[in-house]
Amino acid sequence: MVYREEINMQSNEGLPTFHDVTQPAKDAVERSGITNGIVVVYSHHTTCCVIIDECAFDTIPNGLYTLQQDFVDAMEKIMPAFTKDGMYRHPGPKAREFGFEHGEDEKTSRNTDAHLRSSLVGRSETIVVFDGQPDLGEFGHIYFVDFDQTRARSRTLQIQVIGE
Amino acid sequence: MVYREEINMQSNEGLPTFHDVTQPAKDAVERSGITNGIVVVYSHHTTCCVIIDECAFDTIPNGLYTLQQDFVDAMEKIMPAFTKDGMYRHPGPKAREFGFEHGEDEKTSRNTDAHLRSSLVGRSETIVVFDGQPDLGEFGHIYFVDFDQTRARSRTLQIQVIGE
Amino acid sequence: MVYREEINMQSNEGLPTFHDVTQPAKDAVERSGITNGIVVVYSHHTTCCVIIDECAFDTIPNGLYTLQQDFVDAMEKIMPAFTKDGMYRHPGPKAREFGFEHGEDEKTSRNTDAHLRSSLVGRSETIVVFDGQPDLGEFGHIYFVDFDQTRARSRTLQIQVIGE
Repeated sequence: MVYREEINMQSNEGLPTFHDVTQPAKDAVERSGITNGIVVVYSHHTTCCVIIDECAFDTIPNGLYTLQQDFVDAMEKIMPAFTKDGMYRHPGPKAREFGFEHGEDEKTSRNTDAHLRSSLVGRSETIVVFDGQPDLGEFGHIYFVDFDQTRARSRTLQIQVIGE
Repeated sequence: MVYREEINMQSNEGLPTFHDVTQPAKDAVERSGITNGIVVVYSHHTTCCVIIDECAFDTIPNGLYTLQQDFVDAMEKIMPAFTKDGMYRHPGPKAREFGFEHGEDEKTSRNTDAHLRSSLVGRSETIVVFDGQPDLGEFGHIYFVDFDQTRARSRTLQIQVIGE
Repeated sequence: MVYREEINMQSNEGLPTFHDVTQPAKDAVERSGITNGIVVVYSHHTTCCVIIDECAFDTIPNGLYTLQQDFVDAMEKIMPAFTKDGMYRHPGPKAREFGFEHGEDEKTSRNTDAHLRSSLVGRSETIVVFDGQPDLGEFGHIYFVDFDQTRARSRTLQIQVIGE
C-alpha cells in the first residue's frame, strides 16, 4: 500500500530555512492507515534536504534554533556560503546562461553552497513506521532545510508512506 | 510484505561506539522470507547513525577499527567533540533545563557534536535486497554508530524489511 | 510490487568518477509499471555513493562538471585523497595483508578517503515516485560517484522500484 501527501512551504532569503515537518509526517502516516512500513520524507529541490534532530528550544536573533545554527556553522567550514567570486567553480558560463534563461539573476545563481550541502546531507530521510507511528522517539523532529539563501520562494515536500 | 526486528545494544562512554549489525540485518532478511525488496536499518536515536563500510581488521588501543577512528577524525574537523563551553550554541538555557528535567546533567547535556553528526551522516541506511540477501558485496558491513560520548547507555535499532 | 534493474559502469583512475544515471532510473521506473512508490538507487560498493544534484553544464579540463569538482573540493577538506603515508590509520597491517590476498597492491590499498566519503555521503538515494515518474523536478540528476581514484574498474548499481 502506498499513500502520499505533498506539502508546500515558504523559504526565507538571507539565511537557511528550517521547517519542522514532524506533525505533517505523523498526520500523513495516520491518514494513510498504514501501521507497519516506512515513511519517506523527500525534498523535491536540489538545494534542500531533510534531516532529523531533537528540538533545541532556544532560538538566536536570526530566528534559528541554536542547534540549527550549529549545523549551519559546521556546513560553513566545508561548503561556505557563496559570498564572493572564485569561491566555487560553479556556476560557469553555460550554467549562468541557462539560469538566466530560467528566471535566475546574478544573485540567485550564486547558490552553489546550497547545491553542495543538499548533495552531502541528502535529499530525504526514511523513517521506520510501526504500531501506526513513525519511530522518532520522544525527542525526534523532522526538518525540511532549504540551504538556498539567495531568495525566498515556495518549496515542496513529499511524504510517501509505504507498508501494510 | 513488511517484517520488523528490533535489536538492543549497549554504548560506551568516552568515545563513539560502533556496533557491527551486519549479521542481525542478514538474519532479519532471512527470517522475513522476503526475497526482493529493501531492508531499512534505522537508528531510533538523535545522536546515532547507521553507515556501511568494509571491515578494517586492524584495531587501535581504544578498541575502534582503524577505519572507524579515521571516520571519527574526519568528523572532528567539522563537528568536534564538545570539550569546552562556547564551542556550540546548543544547549541553550531552555534546552539545559529541559534536559535536566529528563535525566541529563551538566556532562551529558554536552552532546551537541553527536546531534550534529547524526543529522549529517543520516539516521538510516536503505539496502537493496534480492535473491533473499541484502546486497552488501563481499566486504560490506553495516555499523550502528552512537556518537554520544558523554555516557554509556542502552540503544535501539530497527531493521525493517519491505518487499515480496 | 518490486522491480529491479542492475547497471554496470566503468570507473576511471586518477580522479573520482561521476556517472549520470538519471535516464536509467527513469527507464527502470517506466518498465516497472509502478506508478506510486519509491525508487532506491543503490551502490554495491564501499567506496562509492549516490547523490542527486542539478547538471552544471560547464566542464573543467579533467572532464568533471564544475559542480562535481566543487563537491570533490569540499570532500578534500575533511577526507583528503590519500597521497602520503600517515594521513590515515587505515589500512593497517592486517587490512593490507587481506587486500593483497584479494588482488590489491600498494597503490590500490590506499583508498581510505573513498571509504570515508562513501560512509559520509551515503550509499543510496531514495526517490519518491508518483504519476509513474521519479520526483526529480526539472533539474534533478542522479549521479553514481566512485570516489576510489586508485584504479579503473567495473562498477555495479542497483535500481529497485517498490510500490503499486
